[in-house]
Amino acid sequence: MDRALDLAALGMGRTSPNPLVGALVLDVSGRLVGEGFHAAAGRPHAEVGALAQAGVRARGGTLVVTLEPCSHHGRTPPCSEAVIAAGVHRVIVAMQDPDPRVAGSGLKALRQAGAEVLLGVRQRQAERLNAAFCHRLRTGRPLGLLKWAMSVDGRTALPNGASQWISAPESRDWVHRLRARCDAVIVGGGTLRADDPLLTSRGRRAIEPLRVVISRTLDLPQQARLWDRAAAPTLVAHGPEAPQRERQRLDGLGVERLELKRCEPLDLMEALALRGCNQVLWECGPALAAAALRQGCVQHLSAVMAPKLLGGVAARTPVGDLQLSSMAMAPAWLEQALSRSGDDLIWELSSPGG
Amino acid sequence: MDRALDLAALGMGRTSPNPLVGALVLDVSGRLVGEGFHAAAGRPHAEVGALAQAGVRARGGTLVVTLEPCSHHGRTPPCSEAVIAAGVHRVIVAMQDPDPRVAGSGLKALRQAGAEVLLGVRQRQAERLNAAFCHRLRTGRPLGLLKWAMSVDGRTALPNGASQWISAPESRDWVHRLRARCDAVIVGGGTLRADDPLLTSRGRRAIEPLRVVISRTLDLPQQARLWDRAAAPTLVAHGPEAPQRERQRLDGLGVERLELKRCEPLDLMEALALRGCNQVLWECGPALAAAALRQGCVQHLSAVMAPKLLGGVAARTPVGDLQLSSMAMAPAWLEQALSRSGDDLIWELSSPGG
Repeated sequence: MDRALDLAALGMGRTSPNPLVGALVLDVSGRLVGEGFHAAAGRPHAEVGALAQAGVRARGGTLVVTLEPCSHHGRTPPCSEAVIAAGVHRVIVAMQDPDPRVAGSGLKALRQAGAEVLLGVRQRQAERLNAAFCHRLRTGRPLGLLKWAMSVDGRTALPNGASQWISAPESRDWVHRLRARCDAVIVGGGTLRADDPLLTSRGRRAIEPLRVVISRTLDLPQQARLWDRAAAPTLVAHGPEAPQRERQRLDGLGVERLELKRCEPLDLMEALALRGCNQVLWECGPALAAAALRQGCVQHLSAVMAPKLLGGVAARTPVGDLQLSSMAMAPAWLEQALSRSGDDLIWELSSPGG
Repeated sequence: MDRALDLAALGMGRTSPNPLVGALVLDVSGRLVGEGFHAAAGRPHAEVGALAQAGVRARGGTLVVTLEPCSHHGRTPPCSEAVIAAGVHRVIVAMQDPDPRVAGSGLKALRQAGAEVLLGVRQRQAERLNAAFCHRLRTGRPLGLLKWAMSVDGRTALPNGASQWISAPESRDWVHRLRARCDAVIVGGGTLRADDPLLTSRGRRAIEPLRVVISRTLDLPQQARLWDRAAAPTLVAHGPEAPQRERQRLDGLGVERLELKRCEPLDLMEALALRGCNQVLWECGPALAAAALRQGCVQHLSAVMAPKLLGGVAARTPVGDLQLSSMAMAPAWLEQALSRSGDDLIWELSSPGG
């Protein structure tokens, strides 16, 4: 199963809205005869690839797979049927598929066809691997990551607004790799106006993440690197109050627009889930970060901390008003990782609320 | 020499204005026959203690000492004379004494008396051990440490000013131990008014560090834990502009006052050096911290970082305006240590300027 989990991880950043899945087939004597992983939505499922490699050697053998084989017709036919057709005798599964269209029916079909099914091997690891997919199915929203780079005194810019670069080159590279694991990267209008960011993974992801700007006023620059659709797709989200004139101006620039019911992080997350995003990255300023946090749209934090002092009285900080009035309202987040990146530290935390 | 350095460290926090010194004596056949360390100003020097233990067995033997034996009459007679009188044949010394009253003359006296002198064994370690003492002799100011506790989003208080407690109990204990290594702890009037702090090492230091308040206006509360001289000594420093009425009021409370030439961190540091402080801790608010940093009064930072989000638009941050206008003016500080304390991280950095 460890090998199957490693295989599954090879699809990282390319399978959304689908989960990461890895599979392998052992013949009747226990020899490895096939391997596969889900490489991208619309491409064959992991089991199908592994069974194809194994061919007739799968007969009477064992399928090891990180997620319950599907039982429904999606873009590909149901895997449980393929498993049964291959004559596999035993199926070892890490976790049940949380997709309500599957949710145990794949395992049931296998059992009914006479296969021996063993569920729950390395379940925790499999759930962690697909945390984003599971979160979306459970909540109807993508898993939200929030990232910022700050000085050791908690500033994300100098008093004059300069912010390039607080962090080490190694940390900027780390951010590109972080983006490669996300389906969308979100900023607000303020960040777009101030930084004119590119927001790509610099080619580390075959299909660059969707770049999203959420803006109430649509007061966005005429020239911006985000408008260059050759680098990556861009979506501008706004609410019903957005001025008609600005909408038309953006349409004229060829920028894709999305009108949300309300111009709020929560509404944006629901829209992105419907577009198949499992995991998104907030790379925004303090006001939008605070709104996203207040609305439960952030499950993970990555604070890149540089050993520099920027100081300031009103210089930019990572997070705006969270409306907390007592320390008891600020529980400790849970450490996921602490790593070094050049001279910087990267502290990754997950929400105490899960 | 490693043993002598360990012995020296036993005096930590108690020898100011003197350095930390450890010594041991080996007899003519190389057996350990005496050990000593400087335990407090006015108490015997390390060499004298070690030689007293060794007695006649020191004759023809070796003295190992972390700092050049002194050659001047201070509160105790010169150690170089005692070494010569004991008939020691060989003296191994880690570093020369930077005190201009010694500065090589102790070693010269030993050589003239016929002893073999070896200088520079474990010199770097010895210099690090006495970094504060060396800094004071070189600059005329104590070594300055700045400490703060903040959330991962760089806040030292909630928007409503509440700050107890951001950090874990283990970190507050760590601060008490940090204070025990310092000769004085400095706050501004704002911190005194807001927090009514105790600022002691909670008994971890035989003589509690001097508690210092620096205040331009002397607008300080009538009741404060700092005014209780039973817990620890307190000094209020101010400039020539401080109102007469407030001075008299503090005198009436029995609080010690010190008028500085200017009410500035630099002037305070010079005054504290003259009072024998080798190392002091700034535990102040952002404006005073920024002034201390700008005036070169901080050589070490300790940032206690809690995995909490406090948020805020104008909530308190660690450091006020440093008057930086470009990233090039904010060099990376040098990491001295990174440690865990409960759920918190403690990042200790030293100034790139030394």
